[in-house]
Amino acid sequence: MANITKKVSWSSRADESGGTGEGTPLLNGSGQPRLSRQLSGGGSVFQIGRLSTVDLEEEMSSEEDSLRGRLKEIPHNEKLLSLKFESLDYDNIENQLFLEEERRMSYMGFRCLEISRWVVCGLIGFLTGLIACFIDIAVEEIAGIKYRVVKENIEKFTEVGGLSISLILWVVLNSVFVMVGAIIVACIEPIAAGSGIPQIKCYLNGVKIPRVVRLKTLVVKVFGVICSVVGGLAVGKEGPMIHSGAVVAAGVSQGRSTSLKKDLKMFEYFRRDTEKRDFVSAGAAAGVSAAFGAPVGGVLFSLEEGASFWNQMLTWRIFFASMISTFTLNFFLSIYHKKPGDDVRNTVDYNLYEIPLFIIMGAIGGLLGALFNKLNYWLTIFRIRYVHRPCLQVIEAVLVAAVTATVSFTMIYFSNDCQPLGPDHTEEYPLQLFCADGEYNSMATTFFNTPERSVRSLFHNQPGTYNPLTLGLFTLTYFFLACWTYGLAVSAGVFIPSLLIGAAWGRLFGILLASITSTGSIWAGPGKYALIGAAAQLGGIVRMTLSLTVIMVEATGNVTFGLPIMLVLMTAKIVGDYFVEGLYDIHIKLQSVPFLHWDAPATSHWLTAREVMSSPVTCLNRIEKVGTIVDVLSNTSTNHNGFAVVTQGAGGDEPAKLCGLILRSQLIVLLKHKVFVELARSRLTLRKLQLKDFRDAYPRFPPIQSIHVSQDERECMMDLNEFMNATPYTVPQDTSLPRVFKLFRALGLRHLVVVDDENRVVGLVTRKDLARYHLGKHGLEELQLAQT
Amino acid sequence: MANITKKVSWSSRADESGGTGEGTPLLNGSGQPRLSRQLSGGGSVFQIGRLSTVDLEEEMSSEEDSLRGRLKEIPHNEKLLSLKFESLDYDNIENQLFLEEERRMSYMGFRCLEISRWVVCGLIGFLTGLIACFIDIAVEEIAGIKYRVVKENIEKFTEVGGLSISLILWVVLNSVFVMVGAIIVACIEPIAAGSGIPQIKCYLNGVKIPRVVRLKTLVVKVFGVICSVVGGLAVGKEGPMIHSGAVVAAGVSQGRSTSLKKDLKMFEYFRRDTEKRDFVSAGAAAGVSAAFGAPVGGVLFSLEEGASFWNQMLTWRIFFASMISTFTLNFFLSIYHKKPGDDVRNTVDYNLYEIPLFIIMGAIGGLLGALFNKLNYWLTIFRIRYVHRPCLQVIEAVLVAAVTATVSFTMIYFSNDCQPLGPDHTEEYPLQLFCADGEYNSMATTFFNTPERSVRSLFHNQPGTYNPLTLGLFTLTYFFLACWTYGLAVSAGVFIPSLLIGAAWGRLFGILLASITSTGSIWAGPGKYALIGAAAQLGGIVRMTLSLTVIMVEATGNVTFGLPIMLVLMTAKIVGDYFVEGLYDIHIKLQSVPFLHWDAPATSHWLTAREVMSSPVTCLNRIEKVGTIVDVLSNTSTNHNGFAVVTQGAGGDEPAKLCGLILRSQLIVLLKHKVFVELARSRLTLRKLQLKDFRDAYPRFPPIQSIHVSQDERECMMDLNEFMNATPYTVPQDTSLPRVFKLFRALGLRHLVVVDDENRVVGLVTRKDLARYHLGKHGLEELQLAQT
Repeated sequence: MANITKKVSWSSRADESGGTGEGTPLLNGSGQPRLSRQLSGGGSVFQIGRLSTVDLEEEMSSEEDSLRGRLKEIPHNEKLLSLKFESLDYDNIENQLFLEEERRMSYMGFRCLEISRWVVCGLIGFLTGLIACFIDIAVEEIAGIKYRVVKENIEKFTEVGGLSISLILWVVLNSVFVMVGAIIVACIEPIAAGSGIPQIKCYLNGVKIPRVVRLKTLVVKVFGVICSVVGGLAVGKEGPMIHSGAVVAAGVSQGRSTSLKKDLKMFEYFRRDTEKRDFVSAGAAAGVSAAFGAPVGGVLFSLEEGASFWNQMLTWRIFFASMISTFTLNFFLSIYHKKPGDDVRNTVDYNLYEIPLFIIMGAIGGLLGALFNKLNYWLTIFRIRYVHRPCLQVIEAVLVAAVTATVSFTMIYFSNDCQPLGPDHTEEYPLQLFCADGEYNSMATTFFNTPERSVRSLFHNQPGTYNPLTLGLFTLTYFFLACWTYGLAVSAGVFIPSLLIGAAWGRLFGILLASITSTGSIWAGPGKYALIGAAAQLGGIVRMTLSLTVIMVEATGNVTFGLPIMLVLMTAKIVGDYFVEGLYDIHIKLQSVPFLHWDAPATSHWLTAREVMSSPVTCLNRIEKVGTIVDVLSNTSTNHNGFAVVTQGAGGDEPAKLCGLILRSQLIVLLKHKVFVELARSRLTLRKLQLKDFRDAYPRFPPIQSIHVSQDERECMMDLNEFMNATPYTVPQDTSLPRVFKLFRALGLRHLVVVDDENRVVGLVTRKDLARYHLGKHGLEELQLAQT
Repeated sequence: MANITKKVSWSSRADESGGTGEGTPLLNGSGQPRLSRQLSGGGSVFQIGRLSTVDLEEEMSSEEDSLRGRLKEIPHNEKLLSLKFESLDYDNIENQLFLEEERRMSYMGFRCLEISRWVVCGLIGFLTGLIACFIDIAVEEIAGIKYRVVKENIEKFTEVGGLSISLILWVVLNSVFVMVGAIIVACIEPIAAGSGIPQIKCYLNGVKIPRVVRLKTLVVKVFGVICSVVGGLAVGKEGPMIHSGAVVAAGVSQGRSTSLKKDLKMFEYFRRDTEKRDFVSAGAAAGVSAAFGAPVGGVLFSLEEGASFWNQMLTWRIFFASMISTFTLNFFLSIYHKKPGDDVRNTVDYNLYEIPLFIIMGAIGGLLGALFNKLNYWLTIFRIRYVHRPCLQVIEAVLVAAVTATVSFTMIYFSNDCQPLGPDHTEEYPLQLFCADGEYNSMATTFFNTPERSVRSLFHNQPGTYNPLTLGLFTLTYFFLACWTYGLAVSAGVFIPSLLIGAAWGRLFGILLASITSTGSIWAGPGKYALIGAAAQLGGIVRMTLSLTVIMVEATGNVTFGLPIMLVLMTAKIVGDYFVEGLYDIHIKLQSVPFLHWDAPATSHWLTAREVMSSPVTCLNRIEKVGTIVDVLSNTSTNHNGFAVVTQGAGGDEPAKLCGLILRSQLIVLLKHKVFVELARSRLTLRKLQLKDFRDAYPRFPPIQSIHVSQDERECMMDLNEFMNATPYTVPQDTSLPRVFKLFRALGLRHLVVVDDENRVVGLVTRKDLARYHLGKHGLEELQLAQT
């Protein structure tokens, strides 16, 4: 039994790596991880004992699970890399067809392409802005109706008695909204769950997450996020906006929608991974820009995540998309509000001696963030194990909605923090409850409001608006609510809840500080501490750095706080990283995504391409039998995506030299169009295959099973010369891992051929071969590959 | 005669390219540029006829020059690439020594390195801030004294008559300052002339500009810029601040000063191009940050210029340096001013219908910028031809200073634009002259002030402060003065003068607009038009994009103007690029620097590595005779910097396979330490050569002539195995130019080996081989290489 489980979770590790394809676990023959072979070699600080034990436990438990009949359940483990994720190919496939097209194109042709790139970016910005506008207005309108209904109800029953009816009304209203949101996510498009930022990070990193940039995802995301925010969950709508921007970009740039079966015959040149990725990064930037009013922050976000493709013109286009997006949003919102957008600016300044305090707050943020992440990590593990059926997910979401409403109600009910109504009525929905006339319940301003408004109140309200107990209780409850909420099967972000928690304890910190110092006058402005606390908490949870600083500065319009915010984010990151990774990274790891970081692990210089690569490689000849190709592609146990093309020496005994690289998707198109050569006769096909045929099939290439090849055709030959990439990047066997990594990452490769000193193919390096090495607590560790 | 000139300007093109080294012009044997050979091949849109003619004319004229005995004079031409510039090597030399060191290093070692990188960046920021602060205060103090003296003098003589004495005083004062500045630049360190931004751009691009990051340059730069600004030239101090930051970074990060002969034995790990470049980009960012109070703009500036090395942690460190720099500057300035820095913010807003007007202004800026650049281009050509002796340069600088003072005085004298003194006395040095009491001469606020203050007045002064005639005259004169000044042998930047010109005509534009529209009320705030005009003019001259937008937004603290500024900069760039390149690019081209742009020219897909590379390559054996090595290195006609290391086949007739790459600098160190093996006996050297020996020699490796090798030693052998980079990057011969370019640029390479399909060396691609192809008006053009 143990053997079977092992087989399931290991399987062959040869996806896209061009291994032998015998279906055996490719543990380099010896059945043990590669690193352990190194142990005998040098005195490196290195342990794998513990790792293996953990894996064993994990496998044991999954085995027990399977005994209980839950075979579909996946033994998730962050020490695994999943083989189900394919890579995007950011390296142009420079085959003859491509080169011919490029060579045919005139200078004006390139100019036109450049102009259409700008047009597409403008469109992306505009549409993203519109979508953000739609979400904003919808949330505001629907939440407004909900709060008014509940408020009237509460006011009615406060006098009459029987507030439990109000509670039930509130709970039911929230639950219904959340249920709708959860159902569309869980049943129609599960990838639309959560903030979407981890998915976009992966996409920009070069991992193909299935269905992440489809139209259906967009629709579900937009309506899902409206439902969850209106449903009163502890969530924000910023993450989903970023995801929406990315989907818009992927759609607009391709000039067609596969879902709607509509092809505008435009932008056909952009139908490949390289170009699409550029547009998706523009879309993500436009999303950030719309979500926070932070165009520069958006550009930096895309660059931080997208890596490997910094290019002046591209960045400038991304910035253009961001600007248009913010502008569109502000323009339509100002029409909707019938007044120019409110430009609330913190005009307060900070003193030099406050900086140490800010740093302390940063450390607190790091600690709380780590706690948040750790709790959410356990919760996610629990969810992966036990809450993976759609109906269970919907039930959990509704439960959270009900609990959130109940807790909010209880907190408001038992709070007796009454504050006088300001002359300017800054509170949108003041709840009088048991307060005297002309007063309102302060706890309600934080709970009985959309989280965004609550954050703004915490930043900008006058000192004395909140009492410390309210803030403390609020922080505590909201912390756990937000932690429980993130990872539910609803479309929702974690930015705003994090800011809200941080703003609450930051303001509390400021108030306490003022009460400790005798006069309290020099520590004026708890709003400033709320801002710093918000930054600290958010930084502690998501661990973003440069882009987050700029986003915070742009969102608050407060340039002077740049330095403190940077210091706080840095402290939060350092402290938090000591305990546990950032929230997005945790979720990426839990999905076993082969995510490539910026550099190879520091202590990996003693690994070389020879140890890292997969071998032996499935090779094809320049002119290959169709039957062989079909067999290779049909081999489900290997499921390779890239194949080395070689020339045999004249004598036959001479070894095969590398002469090209061809992808599964290309072979599929070739087979589909039956580009065969019969040995005896001339070419069978009349039509010459063109680049357009490949573009039409992109990105949803049919599986090999859908292509019928007759027995006669199997005997034909296929000429790969014209279609293979004749100049793939190669490295010698002795290249160190950091060097391989740098080449791979800088060029955004999918396959890197390892050759010996006579240019013979000895192995293939893919994303998974590189992503599996990481620096653990006990030195360099090696992740294992699983089919799940 | 024509032949000789040709030989001089062509010479061999083999620097760092490992060509044959026979000293003959390496025109691929046929004596004609490579591109022309292509013409017969395909129907590409391609002309070289005109190019050749131009070159011929150029050579003819230089020939005539040489006839007149000015042999030292250089026939500068933007159609040449100079061979005198070497490349920086951003690819780590992964030889055995390096790998051994890396493998020995523990995880804690890497952590410590990381921490020291942060410390160095903090120091860079701090010191750059201090230097900026010093420049600011020195300029303010000395200029203050100067203006007070002149003002008192003018006031005295206005009553008495005989203002010509004031004029003389002013002219003499200015000339003396400028003369001092010009003398130290022209005689001590000519590289310190100008803004330094083109040099920093080149450095970050990967070109080694001699002496650009030395301590002497810094000192001359700092004192030079103080002299030129105090001397009343139409210059700014921002460019030099950026250069200063870069020098500080290069110095601090190496932990020693070769000039001062002081070695702190710190940061030895950072003594190589890769690490140093990273720090220099941090320094440049810190400089921008200090100059404009724009930390994010600084980061983006470094990234835009530095390219190829975007890395999250690095960017975060760069941002840290920038922040510290701004903070330091503001902190010390606030102490100096005894009040917190004035945070003047434009609170005005723009209307949607103004955007077309802004775009028109952008176009005007582009036109004026192109005019400026064209004039400056001709002037620079003139200077290169006729003003290249230090004494002439000093005389020209003094002349410009005198003319500037005279023109300013005349303009002030003949202007009768009297304005009432405001209640807040915003003018630092109001000149009453012939105005009534309580009034001041408005022309004087622009001329009789440091350019920076003038810009601020144009942005922020109340409507009605300037009359249109004043602004028009000022724009006209200052335009020509600034154009004449840029390129003088003084340390000075072009940012502030550009802003000033733009602000002047922008404000004029705003005033005219208000007078055209009947009420004038809706076009309130000419200050806003001054801002847009400044952006347009600066954009038209320097053609920076993303970073400049952010710098402008940060410098004015005005986030709402982000979109208009971006649109204006874009328009200015598009319009300007139609006529002529940006100012920095012009100066880089005139220096014939092999500057690599972001991408290969669009229409270059039909060029392959085979056509681009230099061949044949000078190869060395793994164990090579010392005499051979000395001969190869001593060959002044080739002066190669990189050599392929090959293994001969067993039989001798089998061709040599590539097995590594070794640099001239490494061979020099090996020769210096006499790491020889005598064939008969055992190893001669006792001490094993270590990485430290290479680091100690970095970056000023001695020339081969300084190393004495005896006749006996010439017979010894040298074992290169341990020192060569055993895994150089290679490409096949058929790789297209864009693909070669991408690999080269993304990894910051210096040498890229071209191999055939049996891994035999067939050529070497260097920076100059790639930089020589560019897109001219008539399609793809090929620059020629010159020894100058």
